[in-house]
Amino acid sequence: MADNTPTRYEQLADDMAQAIREGLLKSGDRLPSVRQTCQRRGVSPSTVFQAYGLLEARGIIEARARSGYYVRSQKRPSRALSEPAVPRSEATEVAVSALAFDLLETTRDPQVVPLGSAFPAPHLFPLDELARAGAREMRKLLPEQVTTALTVGDEGLRQALRRRYALQGVPLAPDELVIANGAMEALNLCLQAVTSPGDIVVVESPTFYAALQALERLHLRAVEVATDPSEGVVLEDLARLVGEHDVAACWFMPNLQNPLGALMPVARKRALVDLLAARSIPLIEDDVYGELYADVRRPPPAKAFDQTGNVLHCASFSKCLAPGYRVGWAAAGRHAAQVLRLKMMTSLSTSIPSQLAIAGYLAQGGYDRHLRQLREALSTEQRRVRRLIERHFPAGTRVTLPAGGYFLWLELPEAVNALELHHRALAIGVSTAPGVLFSADRRFVHHLRLNVGHPDDPRIDAAVRSLGQIAEAMTRDAKPARAHA
Amino acid sequence: MADNTPTRYEQLADDMAQAIREGLLKSGDRLPSVRQTCQRRGVSPSTVFQAYGLLEARGIIEARARSGYYVRSQKRPSRALSEPAVPRSEATEVAVSALAFDLLETTRDPQVVPLGSAFPAPHLFPLDELARAGAREMRKLLPEQVTTALTVGDEGLRQALRRRYALQGVPLAPDELVIANGAMEALNLCLQAVTSPGDIVVVESPTFYAALQALERLHLRAVEVATDPSEGVVLEDLARLVGEHDVAACWFMPNLQNPLGALMPVARKRALVDLLAARSIPLIEDDVYGELYADVRRPPPAKAFDQTGNVLHCASFSKCLAPGYRVGWAAAGRHAAQVLRLKMMTSLSTSIPSQLAIAGYLAQGGYDRHLRQLREALSTEQRRVRRLIERHFPAGTRVTLPAGGYFLWLELPEAVNALELHHRALAIGVSTAPGVLFSADRRFVHHLRLNVGHPDDPRIDAAVRSLGQIAEAMTRDAKPARAHA
Repeated sequence: MADNTPTRYEQLADDMAQAIREGLLKSGDRLPSVRQTCQRRGVSPSTVFQAYGLLEARGIIEARARSGYYVRSQKRPSRALSEPAVPRSEATEVAVSALAFDLLETTRDPQVVPLGSAFPAPHLFPLDELARAGAREMRKLLPEQVTTALTVGDEGLRQALRRRYALQGVPLAPDELVIANGAMEALNLCLQAVTSPGDIVVVESPTFYAALQALERLHLRAVEVATDPSEGVVLEDLARLVGEHDVAACWFMPNLQNPLGALMPVARKRALVDLLAARSIPLIEDDVYGELYADVRRPPPAKAFDQTGNVLHCASFSKCLAPGYRVGWAAAGRHAAQVLRLKMMTSLSTSIPSQLAIAGYLAQGGYDRHLRQLREALSTEQRRVRRLIERHFPAGTRVTLPAGGYFLWLELPEAVNALELHHRALAIGVSTAPGVLFSADRRFVHHLRLNVGHPDDPRIDAAVRSLGQIAEAMTRDAKPARAHA
Repeated sequence: MADNTPTRYEQLADDMAQAIREGLLKSGDRLPSVRQTCQRRGVSPSTVFQAYGLLEARGIIEARARSGYYVRSQKRPSRALSEPAVPRSEATEVAVSALAFDLLETTRDPQVVPLGSAFPAPHLFPLDELARAGAREMRKLLPEQVTTALTVGDEGLRQALRRRYALQGVPLAPDELVIANGAMEALNLCLQAVTSPGDIVVVESPTFYAALQALERLHLRAVEVATDPSEGVVLEDLARLVGEHDVAACWFMPNLQNPLGALMPVARKRALVDLLAARSIPLIEDDVYGELYADVRRPPPAKAFDQTGNVLHCASFSKCLAPGYRVGWAAAGRHAAQVLRLKMMTSLSTSIPSQLAIAGYLAQGGYDRHLRQLREALSTEQRRVRRLIERHFPAGTRVTLPAGGYFLWLELPEAVNALELHHRALAIGVSTAPGVLFSADRRFVHHLRLNVGHPDDPRIDAAVRSLGQIAEAMTRDAKPARAHA
């Protein structure tokens, strides 16, 4: 449905990235000049500049002053995390909430360096503008609006969201949209709308711990599907799982998966939607990071390829505009009426001051400019912290190359138990998100999710260095022990 | 725990009400003068004035200009609804949500006269003051607050609530309070915290349809307990039920029950708490109407008598201060940690703009003054509409005498199917809440809940008259049919 034909510069950037991946252009090679490329490809200089800008943003090439563009040295290419982990394929009762709960509490202490946090730095958001928009809209509020507020949500906000979907090439059915208290509530409502207690739900591996918590709360069982660190859910594995199990739903993040940062290619998204539609297995799509792409264009959601109303697309403003406002939504396809009923039963409707503030902010313009700045700040910081990790962490550490968002996922040497690392780091005032949180059966014991969304926090460098030192020490300590064994 | 010793004037008012109930003082009798009463009881004139004011507010006596106070004529005492309905005592699967959902949608059309609404008139709330408080607080917000916002809720708001509990003589444990998206979410979280799918929960008869919806959503079964229209849950019946069934929880509204308006006497509340504590059956107490008493003093919640943390007390600002803001809370006793975890899993945290606006409003003072005005407006309107009903509804109609709130519960003549009445009324632009909504097994077919919380809506009188006429016609139509049968 969506027009996802790449633009000229995207096509050009893709071609060059492909050439680099295939080794035709190697680390340190100078790229053809803009003039040369214009002539060879028959495109304008601005197209070439845009393409190079894109590749630069993704960390594939770098500009050197007065010299041109060069393929970036992937200093330790062997350390990039690229193989999907192979999960157990039995259905598992879920019980991660106690651990996740403790984790969330620790990240809320402002004295603790927030590498375990789920949110980017708060100063990256236009909180003053939102507050002004909120004050303005609340002055205009008619008393009738407070008691006639619909469970579906504020009409102005719904209109604004529908317009954004349409601009992304995703036409929504008129009654598909339900406003909720953040994506968290939207996802929970969608999950409940399509499941009953005891049902099996497929989640990614690793997966966002809140998905596991939602399953736990609704007495559902999880089956994890192999998930590629750069391209997301492995469809062959998914096809096998839906053959073996009676699967009630899938809960996936095709865009900038948490914690991997994987971005499912368009063809893969399309195939995913078709695979599930053929079996009428609802796809709950968590797209809260979709706006935080490092690329030049918003990656389409899987919802863009939904022909049957089988995709329940959930997102929010919490990670990209208004944390704490708790405004999210579901575009729930053919399950929208059921989601709406559940919303009514769960919390009746969503806070009017929050909805009006965001609707007012969107109406005044400036959201897309804010998003551009936010994306740039996050991309730059991601590259910077990645280099710090490469420098300070022990040999054998592997780290993802996410296509956006603000998380890095690390695989540490086998000697390092990440939960222990987490506790040691907390003791010196640094939070992390240990890998065991991201799996129903507590795999990923050597893994760690780090938040790289705090560009101006002066404590980050020392904190990453400290984490590296702790990991290094744990590796060292383990060696003699092994020698004795 | 709470100091619930009546004050002098309450004691005096109680004694006089008792005398009237027992027939010692009859309709039309002049009450002793203030001076006489002072002498006889050894109290001050202000105590007598307060006592008479209280009796007047409750519609028991009336002041006549330059003449004194008289016992009000209970024109049709036989018509007051006073017998508890006897519910089936088997556990019932619940399925009222579709009907309730349709009802809620109809009450949101501003063209429809809102006799079926769940909210009082919006102009009764200090919305401008709230908006100003919100704007002021949001300007002061530090960026860090948006991402460190706790699942438990804003600390300022929590402090203000704890203070209000303390002033009502209900000391809360330090971590007992969880802020939620309205009482609806708080109640749902509490219900889930103490039950598992398939469990049995005791609810009142009739009961608030949202309680039935919550049971339905969580795959629970309902057992209804006989509920007295003026004094609430019949404890003998409850004792029998908890003996017969393995009851996981009770969900009751001891203060101004919806739809009956019943107010459980203090002794009965205390006995209820003890009965359930002895069996460790959690009491989920819905107290959203507690501030809307017609009496002079806030009735204590059952929570006031909780010695064991067995009572999960839920309330909100939606019915008494800030509809649409979606701020409620649970004081969940020993289940608070579990409620907090569920809150984190369900919607993470509650909207900051809404919480700060209410916290700011409470801090500036004026809430209690607003509540006094609101209570007075609602009491006056309740008496007014009650008289309209007595005038326009067919003989045999019985109506509750609620101790506050803004609902009347009508029992119509047997010939009148209230659901049909509801549909006929909707056709002429008047909403009602038919009785079948208030029971898991769709009893109360001749019953109707009417909202009497719209003092200045000029359409109310004509709407009540029309309802009466429709009911009258349905009664008339039924008679020949019966004669033929």
